Amino acid sequence: MKRIGVLTSGGDAPGMNAAIRAVVRKAIYHGMEVMGIYNGYQGLIDGNMKPLELGSVGDIIQRGGTKLYSARCPEFITPEGQQKGIQQLKAHEIEGLVVIGGDGSYRGAMVLTKQGFPCVGVPGTIDNDIPGTDYTIGFDTALNTVIDSIDKIRDTATSHDRTFVIEVMGRDAGDLALWAGLAGGAETIIIPEDPFDMKDIVQRLQSGHDRGKKHSIIIVAEGVMSGNEFADRLKEHANIETRVSVLGHIQRGGSPTARDRVLASLFGARAVELLRDDKGGLAVGMKNNQVVDYTMIEAFEGSHQTDLSMYQLSKELAI
Amino acid sequence: MKRIGVLTSGGDAPGMNAAIRAVVRKAIYHGMEVMGIYNGYQGLIDGNMKPLELGSVGDIIQRGGTKLYSARCPEFITPEGQQKGIQQLKAHEIEGLVVIGGDGSYRGAMVLTKQGFPCVGVPGTIDNDIPGTDYTIGFDTALNTVIDSIDKIRDTATSHDRTFVIEVMGRDAGDLALWAGLAGGAETIIIPEDPFDMKDIVQRLQSGHDRGKKHSIIIVAEGVMSGNEFADRLKEHANIETRVSVLGHIQRGGSPTARDRVLASLFGARAVELLRDDKGGLAVGMKNNQVVDYTMIEAFEGSHQTDLSMYQLSKELAI
Amino acid sequence: MKRIGVLTSGGDAPGMNAAIRAVVRKAIYHGMEVMGIYNGYQGLIDGNMKPLELGSVGDIIQRGGTKLYSARCPEFITPEGQQKGIQQLKAHEIEGLVVIGGDGSYRGAMVLTKQGFPCVGVPGTIDNDIPGTDYTIGFDTALNTVIDSIDKIRDTATSHDRTFVIEVMGRDAGDLALWAGLAGGAETIIIPEDPFDMKDIVQRLQSGHDRGKKHSIIIVAEGVMSGNEFADRLKEHANIETRVSVLGHIQRGGSPTARDRVLASLFGARAVELLRDDKGGLAVGMKNNQVVDYTMIEAFEGSHQTDLSMYQLSKELAI
Amino acid sequence: MKRIGVLTSGGDAPGMNAAIRAVVRKAIYHGMEVMGIYNGYQGLIDGNMKPLELGSVGDIIQRGGTKLYSARCPEFITPEGQQKGIQQLKAHEIEGLVVIGGDGSYRGAMVLTKQGFPCVGVPGTIDNDIPGTDYTIGFDTALNTVIDSIDKIRDTATSHDRTFVIEVMGRDAGDLALWAGLAGGAETIIIPEDPFDMKDIVQRLQSGHDRGKKHSIIIVAEGVMSGNEFADRLKEHANIETRVSVLGHIQRGGSPTARDRVLASLFGARAVELLRDDKGGLAVGMKNNQVVDYTMIEAFEGSHQTDLSMYQLSKELAI
Repeated sequence: MKRIGVLTSGGDAPGMNAAIRAVVRKAIYHGMEVMGIYNGYQGLIDGNMKPLELGSVGDIIQRGGTKLYSARCPEFITPEGQQKGIQQLKAHEIEGLVVIGGDGSYRGAMVLTKQGFPCVGVPGTIDNDIPGTDYTIGFDTALNTVIDSIDKIRDTATSHDRTFVIEVMGRDAGDLALWAGLAGGAETIIIPEDPFDMKDIVQRLQSGHDRGKKHSIIIVAEGVMSGNEFADRLKEHANIETRVSVLGHIQRGGSPTARDRVLASLFGARAVELLRDDKGGLAVGMKNNQVVDYTMIEAFEGSHQTDLSMYQLSKELAI
Repeated sequence: MKRIGVLTSGGDAPGMNAAIRAVVRKAIYHGMEVMGIYNGYQGLIDGNMKPLELGSVGDIIQRGGTKLYSARCPEFITPEGQQKGIQQLKAHEIEGLVVIGGDGSYRGAMVLTKQGFPCVGVPGTIDNDIPGTDYTIGFDTALNTVIDSIDKIRDTATSHDRTFVIEVMGRDAGDLALWAGLAGGAETIIIPEDPFDMKDIVQRLQSGHDRGKKHSIIIVAEGVMSGNEFADRLKEHANIETRVSVLGHIQRGGSPTARDRVLASLFGARAVELLRDDKGGLAVGMKNNQVVDYTMIEAFEGSHQTDLSMYQLSKELAI
Repeated sequence: MKRIGVLTSGGDAPGMNAAIRAVVRKAIYHGMEVMGIYNGYQGLIDGNMKPLELGSVGDIIQRGGTKLYSARCPEFITPEGQQKGIQQLKAHEIEGLVVIGGDGSYRGAMVLTKQGFPCVGVPGTIDNDIPGTDYTIGFDTALNTVIDSIDKIRDTATSHDRTFVIEVMGRDAGDLALWAGLAGGAETIIIPEDPFDMKDIVQRLQSGHDRGKKHSIIIVAEGVMSGNEFADRLKEHANIETRVSVLGHIQRGGSPTARDRVLASLFGARAVELLRDDKGGLAVGMKNNQVVDYTMIEAFEGSHQTDLSMYQLSKELAI
Repeated sequence: MKRIGVLTSGGDAPGMNAAIRAVVRKAIYHGMEVMGIYNGYQGLIDGNMKPLELGSVGDIIQRGGTKLYSARCPEFITPEGQQKGIQQLKAHEIEGLVVIGGDGSYRGAMVLTKQGFPCVGVPGTIDNDIPGTDYTIGFDTALNTVIDSIDKIRDTATSHDRTFVIEVMGRDAGDLALWAGLAGGAETIIIPEDPFDMKDIVQRLQSGHDRGKKHSIIIVAEGVMSGNEFADRLKEHANIETRVSVLGHIQRGGSPTARDRVLASLFGARAVELLRDDKGGLAVGMKNNQVVDYTMIEAFEGSHQTDLSMYQLSKELAI
């Protein structure tokens, strides 16, 4: 291929810029040209794109968000929208595409691949919920933002002998809640992957209290219910007063951690290598500590596995 | 005085531990003993206290929260509660007291002073709302936590061309919202000290949008209304979609900034000096960049002044 | 004035970008145009400049370093260099100038003012050593970087019962060392403003050791001697083993703290107001918690005062 | 086993406290008692130990350093020292031991195992240099500290068009330098695992310069040579001026990252499980994203592999 495109799609995640940088530099290293497409698939439809040079991606490896912007694009789900996108690819002589985003972003990539424009997916989402990869770009940063927040809230919880309910992101996946809860030393973690028993939770809180532990941190994954709803139910169930903290959008931003930058660099580079070999319809990922690639079908049809042994361990350590 | 006590009262604030450390070490430096009283005035009533040595306050200058814990104490508002406290002071031979907390905490301190136990107030609250001092312990740390959050949220706001409403703490005072808004480059800041005009806000948002600025950050002080309520009103008024982020309790925790540690050290030391001179009923503060002390009456009867020239400047810089 | 210029000069400091933003936006708010001059006075000589718009300074308030770059410029000390600069000002119809930097940068500004181009100085340096202002832009950020480093080093000092010598910046001024030492809970602080007595230091270390304190942090301002030299002398004097950490250039970078951003915004705005009033040869500063302006002569001829009462306090709290 | 001991040995690393916490809580969960042994093997010889309860390890998961302290212990290399240690184990009825530290710490653990006291090694070092595990506790935190420093230094490098040489830790291993260089976007990385060619480096710097890149970051692993020596050689070789920053001991401290806390929790728990099964002479580790255990011999005789494909990638992305 002589010219490839790159776009970011779906919710932004820290490390997306590092991935863009890797795509651009790796491609240029191999003598290819790169077009940066703005606003995700919408920009593809609109022809909103421009060439990226080595210098275009200087000083962005450490920036949160995405320099290429992102947007939802319902139009690209339609055949008409897709045809417009293909026209733009032809018009700009783009032969292949790197799509950085969640697995929703892969669907469009699959369509384009079938139409003769090989696409490679790079998993970028803080939710860590893409089948086929152990980690996604942004997860590690979001995780550290969450534990930093837990550490701060614990200062108040301890000083005032209070119980806090902290709602964390993750959509339908419990990874962020689970890892953050284990790393933050939370007393209780509620994730979608395992039904919770309010009686059990109340008993744990009370036995801790009897042992002299007067404060407690409960992490609730947003995929289960909201932090406020959980607090209400705890109150109803056992008259336990809590304070609620909804961490919200701070979880999506910030300078990426070292690991997210490295992951993004490895993934972006592999994506370019695949396109050089004219391979499309593939997603890159990290599996057993190795960079891998696999068919996007696996990302659609597979299901993400949360490590439930960590869940069990979190309970044992929170006794 | 040969022996003084120290307690923390009201909401915890980063830097309270640094103030405790300063009180203990300064007192010991001058040959006095210090009793640490736990759980605020409740601990005073209960006689929940123990001697603090040099080593007791080692390695705490950098910790958030308060090592002495804090609690509300309705009982201490009653004459009976106060008498119990006085009995404990006598029983433990405590001659004077340093009270670290908000101006609510000063009321009890005033009562004790009138009963012959000189008390000195040290302003500790993230709200920066205590009359008589330009800054309170914890304000600077909370401020930096808020701008760190704004910086993170801006990553997403920019990447997705969105408008965010961020609710920040401060009770009835707008200082935290105002400083954070100015430092965070917020496009709009809503504080209790100045009535806002929704039409004006909408017009600013739209003229920014027309100029190509597709994202925007609006800071709302909790003393005005909740972030969600503000977002609803903006939606009603002009059909502007926003995302809301309620920063919540992360604002109260964390390792104190350098400035809060220095402030806490200066205040704690001055409080001890006043007690050495048998002076009570005074609060310490920072006024025109100098450590000062003033009668607690001023803290009750005065009113905190927010710097409205900064408010005007924030509007000019956000054009 | 219809058009002003802005440049940064001397060592970079966190918050310079926030100051540039304030200058640009405040000027545009008042209907003036702003030229950004690159690489300090060198860029003025070379005519390396371009117009700055509202959008040019978007998303920079939180960035370290200076978007306008900085450089030493020996040529501007010569009358020939100055004439070249003046030619450029004329050619670009720039009527006044904001110079952000250390007091060295003010000298060129004074020359231009005398030649009919009013200049205003904005104090930007981490060293906090400019006469006439209590604080400079960048000091607060550097201070927090230093205490973050001290906190980290203390983890190792405590775990291994070691004594560390930490060398901090500040050129001839001890402010950074003194504030950081007080905020970091250092056992010993060595600053240029006060001669130190090695015997006294050794005795303090040993009496701490006898009391059970087996680790210790010594802060040495670079203006006194290097950390390595101090460690050697301690070794010679009393055979005390230490580890040395030279914090170095990390002290100059990073996202500015809230306070530095606010200071930069206030200073930048005041500088524009002065130019609007055709006032030059002035520097802005913070004095007794108020923004002030004063003649640059004061900055050259005055001397910066370090608060020695804080120095005394640091000794009392480190007993 | 009814009672186990735990100690930390060698250089401290962030996350050691999280590992101690996991050992204590997992053991208590399974009905075992835990003795905390202070100052590493020296404390074992001296009988410097005390029982750890659930509450003993509360609020330490987020702390850097090691609550159990660490120290070198030449005496434990001798048979006499080892016998003293064994006497203490017997006297305190300790049946097995968890040793948290570098591979040097494993040697003593092997001796004790052979004498009938099963020991399990938990890899704790920022150097990431222990054969048999992909990651060690502390590496991720140190890595993030280094990239935070690189980000800060880059602010100055960019603002002043300078080249910086940054020396990072890692003893004989290049992992920290390599990962930090890749994540920090360094232009050049020098590690012990690959001989470097000064001519090549100079050429890269100059071709970057010709392309308009006037600043540059060079990371040097301490295992190759000091940053100052490298700078001197660059100066000699090609008259290139650089600034040197030796990051030093800040790399060993700080609150552990989420990943280090999770790793420490998983490792500590696995170590207890092995002791429950009366297995000793083993080390735990992370291999292909799974917690594993393996004979300590492998740690002594194997050699740590640095991922040289990352090294190659760093060069391609830094073009």
